[in-house]
Amino acid sequence: MIEYINKNRTRFIDELLAFLRIPSISARSEHKTDVQNAAEFVKAKLLEAGADLAEICPTAGHPIVYGEKIVNPSLPTVLVYGHYDVQPVDPLHLWDSPPFEPVIKDEKIYARGACDDKGQVYMHVKALEVMLKNNALACNVKFMIEGEEEVGSSNLATFIQQNKTRLKADIILVSDTGIIANDTPSIDVGLRGLSYVEVEVTGADHDLHSGVYGGAVGNPINVLCEMIASMKDSNKHITIPHFYDDVVIFTEEERAELNKAPFSLDDYKKYLDIDDVEGEAGYTTLERTGIRPTLDVNGIWGGYTGEGAKTVLPSKAYAKISMRLVPNQSHEKITELFQKHFESIAPKSVRVQVRPHHGGNPALTPTDSVGYKAASLAMEATFGKKPIPTRGGGSIPIVALFEQELGLKTVLMGFGLDSDAIHSPNEHYGLFNYFKGIETIPLFFKYFAELSK
Amino acid sequence: MIEYINKNRTRFIDELLAFLRIPSISARSEHKTDVQNAAEFVKAKLLEAGADLAEICPTAGHPIVYGEKIVNPSLPTVLVYGHYDVQPVDPLHLWDSPPFEPVIKDEKIYARGACDDKGQVYMHVKALEVMLKNNALACNVKFMIEGEEEVGSSNLATFIQQNKTRLKADIILVSDTGIIANDTPSIDVGLRGLSYVEVEVTGADHDLHSGVYGGAVGNPINVLCEMIASMKDSNKHITIPHFYDDVVIFTEEERAELNKAPFSLDDYKKYLDIDDVEGEAGYTTLERTGIRPTLDVNGIWGGYTGEGAKTVLPSKAYAKISMRLVPNQSHEKITELFQKHFESIAPKSVRVQVRPHHGGNPALTPTDSVGYKAASLAMEATFGKKPIPTRGGGSIPIVALFEQELGLKTVLMGFGLDSDAIHSPNEHYGLFNYFKGIETIPLFFKYFAELSK
Repeated sequence: MIEYINKNRTRFIDELLAFLRIPSISARSEHKTDVQNAAEFVKAKLLEAGADLAEICPTAGHPIVYGEKIVNPSLPTVLVYGHYDVQPVDPLHLWDSPPFEPVIKDEKIYARGACDDKGQVYMHVKALEVMLKNNALACNVKFMIEGEEEVGSSNLATFIQQNKTRLKADIILVSDTGIIANDTPSIDVGLRGLSYVEVEVTGADHDLHSGVYGGAVGNPINVLCEMIASMKDSNKHITIPHFYDDVVIFTEEERAELNKAPFSLDDYKKYLDIDDVEGEAGYTTLERTGIRPTLDVNGIWGGYTGEGAKTVLPSKAYAKISMRLVPNQSHEKITELFQKHFESIAPKSVRVQVRPHHGGNPALTPTDSVGYKAASLAMEATFGKKPIPTRGGGSIPIVALFEQELGLKTVLMGFGLDSDAIHSPNEHYGLFNYFKGIETIPLFFKYFAELSK
Repeated sequence: MIEYINKNRTRFIDELLAFLRIPSISARSEHKTDVQNAAEFVKAKLLEAGADLAEICPTAGHPIVYGEKIVNPSLPTVLVYGHYDVQPVDPLHLWDSPPFEPVIKDEKIYARGACDDKGQVYMHVKALEVMLKNNALACNVKFMIEGEEEVGSSNLATFIQQNKTRLKADIILVSDTGIIANDTPSIDVGLRGLSYVEVEVTGADHDLHSGVYGGAVGNPINVLCEMIASMKDSNKHITIPHFYDDVVIFTEEERAELNKAPFSLDDYKKYLDIDDVEGEAGYTTLERTGIRPTLDVNGIWGGYTGEGAKTVLPSKAYAKISMRLVPNQSHEKITELFQKHFESIAPKSVRVQVRPHHGGNPALTPTDSVGYKAASLAMEATFGKKPIPTRGGGSIPIVALFEQELGLKTVLMGFGLDSDAIHSPNEHYGLFNYFKGIETIPLFFKYFAELSK
């Protein structure tokens, strides 16, 4: 198979570049057609790769691409999940090259979606081609590639509920996470959940002159800042009542195990260009991103933000706030706690509104499962090193959904790096990682079939 | 004179509407030509009104219009100051009609600058015409109408220093403030000063995925909120060390006097549509806006502010912050204190920058001066009620500058209302107020000449 991959290397890259040129930003309604085009692209490429069937399934939002290749009903079935939609690109001026005009520099592909998740989805499409052309497909395979992952997968649950028979499988395989380093493979076994809300703080019903009213009325921006600041104490512990009630507390042994993962605080700070980290007192950086929940403002705006100065007290101020959740927190419960708390701490000088955006529950993958073992063996074979189980800080809320609706465990065999700048300007994906994925996936199928016997 | 005003009422309105159609936003570089056009308009109208001389004086920024009518060197001279530039118009979608397409509704002119300050400046131009056409100009008059008031009057000091002889006068008359109500005339005797800064908080050198890094690094938005929140204590007392050092403390008698001005907290809350006011503990609303300094965020931005959700930890967050100052605070000193404090409270997880925008010192007008008495008599004649001396919360930093550079006191005879929505969407100015100004100004000249004898 390696020979086939090497022979088709240039084409495998070119096809991914074509995929990356489609600006499929799911959050922006003006990109609706582009999102549809990306779905068409995935469908066409699945068929070209040799799928028996590939179709575009409409939803209330962006469509889901479903595809399958059934080799033999008696073989185990792998359901591959991924997403073809991408994050918005702003701030655009920080990109060194246009986000939808991919370029290869230093053996890396620079484009929005290069890693998250088009690059990783396309590894699976090419792996299918490689396996079929080499008569090496050891399992049946189904594909469910959605277009709303970056906006909360709001129509995925309905789709799954309506297609339970069709989606029947033995394991779900997802490449939407990363490894520690190119010489240190790892597999995510814990994913944080997510609660995402937008808040609006209203003072007077119109903007006011800060000279005439300043000091005498609630300024929505100051009030919003005070409310946000009050939601963490000096130990950066979140102050929302009952926020930590369901958090699984790790034993000292488990924490020691987790902290064994290679990590250099100096390199971390250097890479981010920061003088110091900041987080919940009493936890290491790996623990803060792996086993502890968070509360972060992802966006804030209000008042005059243009050139120069304007002495205005705005009528409204807004923030987008997200909380990363850990097992066993429930995103519905946390969103409710947030809303209740936010409303309760609002001073009488303002009115507040909390609008839940989307959420997902945290999830764990057992390391003693057939799926995990197959992934571990596959990576060990291609990287020459046994992968380390890690806990990723990101959220793939659908992992909990899959377990609930389909009764299936998910294996998170991702090939990205923390430094790939996903969700940021200059997102990129290493050619090393792209091809390592294409090599490793067929081995996962092979080991999964063997271990399932 | 009243007869002349009534006969020319429509023309006086039409000319002001033409003035208001020029989008002279000084803060926006794309409006440079419009600002210049507004200056040309003022010059032309001063000449039409009968000025001996009117010219456009270039500065390093937007030009200053100088004009004069010298009746007799032995008469006292009034220097009229105003500004032809206006505030930015955003948020544009909250305007009921386009800001630069003035409309008259319910006897009010709606347009950006209708009150602040084009409408009030134009009262003086028309008053000049009225006095000259009726042989009633009792003083010499000079005009200095600038185009940078809304961006800090940064080139005015230089202009004044270079034109001291030309600007020689006995009093400065400014209409850029308001009255309590149309049936309650008042004259501002205390103006707050202003210190205006922009702050930038930087975390990592690029945007980060909140799942991967959230909880482990300083989020510039959260940090900015915490820093802003920490700058006031629970009594809404500003916590910047030495901030209040120079604040003039009022005696109980002075406070009682100030609180005699007609004021209904219920009407105030109803007008603003708020459930409660908010401000420094221990002070009334009139005191909070009149004799106490403030700290307000006028604008804040950072992270993802578009449609939908993005799980980003931004690299940077920003705020525009202004402090209104009271006698004897110095804006240079306060700006320095702010900067030092802001830098000192920044956690090690971020880097901060403070950029001073502009400032001005607070000022007081003595009520026993000839200028104040002339304005009081003029208003009493036209309103049928003696005006109340008040302390405005706004800042006209140039009042302190005039005193320092020209040795002249300023009379703040403004005709606006707090409800005119200056600096806000749907700014407007009552026709009642516009014509009351045109009627009152000639009487000021008359009384000022008489009392100066």
